[in-house]
Amino acid sequence: MRFFVYLTLLIGLTALHIGTLPSALAQSNLEVDGRRLNETMSAMKTFGGTPEGGSIRVAYSDSNKAALEYLDGLMREAGLATHIDAAGNLVGRREGNSNNLAPIVTGSHIDTVPNGGHYDGIVGVMSAIEVARTLHEQSVSLRHPVEFVVWSNEEGGKTGSRAVAGAVKSAEFALPSLGERSLGEGMQFLGGDPAALESVRRNKGDIAAYLELHIEQGAILDRKNIAIGVVEGIVGIRRWNVTVDGFANHAGTTPMDQRSDALYTAARFVTLVRDSITEIPGTQVGTVGRIEAFPGAPNVVPGQATMSLEIRDLSMDKVGLLFDRIARASEILAKETGAKISFVQFYESMAAPTNEAIRKIIEGSTESLGLSYQRMPSGAGHDAQSLGTICPIGMIFVPSRDGTSHAPSEFTSPQQITDGANVLLRTLLGVDAQMDND
Amino acid sequence: MRFFVYLTLLIGLTALHIGTLPSALAQSNLEVDGRRLNETMSAMKTFGGTPEGGSIRVAYSDSNKAALEYLDGLMREAGLATHIDAAGNLVGRREGNSNNLAPIVTGSHIDTVPNGGHYDGIVGVMSAIEVARTLHEQSVSLRHPVEFVVWSNEEGGKTGSRAVAGAVKSAEFALPSLGERSLGEGMQFLGGDPAALESVRRNKGDIAAYLELHIEQGAILDRKNIAIGVVEGIVGIRRWNVTVDGFANHAGTTPMDQRSDALYTAARFVTLVRDSITEIPGTQVGTVGRIEAFPGAPNVVPGQATMSLEIRDLSMDKVGLLFDRIARASEILAKETGAKISFVQFYESMAAPTNEAIRKIIEGSTESLGLSYQRMPSGAGHDAQSLGTICPIGMIFVPSRDGTSHAPSEFTSPQQITDGANVLLRTLLGVDAQMDND
Repeated sequence: MRFFVYLTLLIGLTALHIGTLPSALAQSNLEVDGRRLNETMSAMKTFGGTPEGGSIRVAYSDSNKAALEYLDGLMREAGLATHIDAAGNLVGRREGNSNNLAPIVTGSHIDTVPNGGHYDGIVGVMSAIEVARTLHEQSVSLRHPVEFVVWSNEEGGKTGSRAVAGAVKSAEFALPSLGERSLGEGMQFLGGDPAALESVRRNKGDIAAYLELHIEQGAILDRKNIAIGVVEGIVGIRRWNVTVDGFANHAGTTPMDQRSDALYTAARFVTLVRDSITEIPGTQVGTVGRIEAFPGAPNVVPGQATMSLEIRDLSMDKVGLLFDRIARASEILAKETGAKISFVQFYESMAAPTNEAIRKIIEGSTESLGLSYQRMPSGAGHDAQSLGTICPIGMIFVPSRDGTSHAPSEFTSPQQITDGANVLLRTLLGVDAQMDND
Repeated sequence: MRFFVYLTLLIGLTALHIGTLPSALAQSNLEVDGRRLNETMSAMKTFGGTPEGGSIRVAYSDSNKAALEYLDGLMREAGLATHIDAAGNLVGRREGNSNNLAPIVTGSHIDTVPNGGHYDGIVGVMSAIEVARTLHEQSVSLRHPVEFVVWSNEEGGKTGSRAVAGAVKSAEFALPSLGERSLGEGMQFLGGDPAALESVRRNKGDIAAYLELHIEQGAILDRKNIAIGVVEGIVGIRRWNVTVDGFANHAGTTPMDQRSDALYTAARFVTLVRDSITEIPGTQVGTVGRIEAFPGAPNVVPGQATMSLEIRDLSMDKVGLLFDRIARASEILAKETGAKISFVQFYESMAAPTNEAIRKIIEGSTESLGLSYQRMPSGAGHDAQSLGTICPIGMIFVPSRDGTSHAPSEFTSPQQITDGANVLLRTLLGVDAQMDND
């Protein structure tokens, strides 16, 4: 621990000398203050932390607002000009040397699911702020302005980042959030103004690049003991409601050969989904997460069963292909069992590939820090996905212990967080040096 | 229709002549008044009938009580001495010639499931009362006293008949019924007295025989166009709560080969149950009627799934054997998928075989009426099952259109009901002549 502190000081002193050098050069050895970063990680536990070690800081809640006030203070200490935008996002801006360059944006979210953990989203926000503090302390001069952002309501629908991408319709204002306030009420509560939402909208060219550090939420890095995931993109998602219609009957009086048991067909469907997804190569996933049988009594042969079906892949074409395979196999199954299987798509989230140039900058940054890395898709959705519709995006993953997320047991070690923040810092410097918005 | 009326009158006149002959002889040609019987069937629709053609006359409801008052009137017209017993059963007693003989009991129930039909239970009650009216009109003299009973709360747990068998514990009084009243409140509401429940209890030898006419609630008679089912017994039932434990994970970030998806294992279990039940010969049935996946979201790999399992057969040994097969196959499945499958039995209803002598009397009665019949198990539970623990029982089935029951579309034709009532009448005469309680 003592060694670590000295090392940080040494690096700080070194960085001081190169404070006014071009950032591409500075990238080679600049590092964040890992101890300070992890202290702010701990401080965040005071806003909505539970006795069981989890966090209840749903979007637009009192603890969400209190945490933003704390972060606003940290941002001001880092020399950022802060404001809450119309969507309830906290934005801290650092000016650049070139007035004609669009800003690089980096951030994540601090809202949690009900009874979530202390890492999902928070690692990206605290690391971004630590990057801002490091740049400020070391008086690093960048070409681009940089905006450090805490997006509002990621867990309840990526509202803040989707507003910036122009994707939030006013009809959404009345929708419930994961807490007590509607989306519109929530934006207002945080200091935003839903009526002025158009003011936050950015178009293509308005943002030079978007960078986000996040926990993996899967176990790939943890199991392989790899420090950094270089995200290839955020997978696209389609979801369907699946209905199986059979015929309800008395479970005592209906012989086995006279049943049209909807749950039996549904069970065959669940195994069919797994087979259809796994029998072709790739990282695609397919899930039946919800099921219900009707009427749902132990003594009635189910006449209907409903399920959810979700398919994710980096390619929307492959999502479509996989669904076609499942639908065809379902037709054959339905003929065999005499049931009817129908699908109604109720959700689609388009795949968002990351920018290849940024992937390479992340890899270079990781190598310069002597860290291991691996390319991988992000199976979970992120604010980066919203930004992906208007600017080049890059995402950095750090390990999640056991792949856990959305639970009190979420954990990423202080060293892993520090590693991630350093990769974010050096990637920001690299993007600043190499990328223009032209 | 006109022909039918004349025929009934003619039979009525003929029966008048033999009114005082021994019942075994009278059995050869005595018949009920089918038109009158079906008029009373229709009259019952005024108590809880719905505009959609169904019936909401759950146990202990206002419409249940009003219907009992109507039936009490019919019973008195038939010369029966009526009372509501402590369990809320309506009992109409007809004295016999031999004071030392225990009564023959016949009846069924008039309470329905919520939004049930007009035939389940009701056919047996109205036919029993029509038998009483016929015996009264024709002054038929029987050796045994006969008690015509409307059992309380069959659909909610056979409370009335179980009380007579001494199987209702006082702890049940606080349990909810299918309506607004608890079992204890309900008994009281109908005119009973839960505190005096012991008064209704009968022991072995106290009842000469119990006869019940009921709709099949299956489609065997309807599909084969057979008039009468000679019930071999009421199947035994065991029910289990089945829990599958896997591991919940993010459906986007967890590769297919790293999942322990409880719903996938549950789906395999559902197909395994069907296979285990059907791969050996017999009339046994097995059903998974209820299923739930947890947490039950489209974007979460289920960590747990719960189901119900029910097995029914005329032999409790076979029920046990079938469960053992399922449990063994489940162990193999759990090993393959890495999940845990556990069973907790929560219900058992013992099989109740009918009396072979009574089966033969039913068959003789059916033949004397020129009707077709077939022996079959009753897959559904009935009040006869309660009585089966204390006396010989016999059950007569009439067809259910499409096997439907517990639904507004329940239907048995007037002629089928009349046929059933005539078989009940002649079976009662046969039992009276042939069976003693010694």
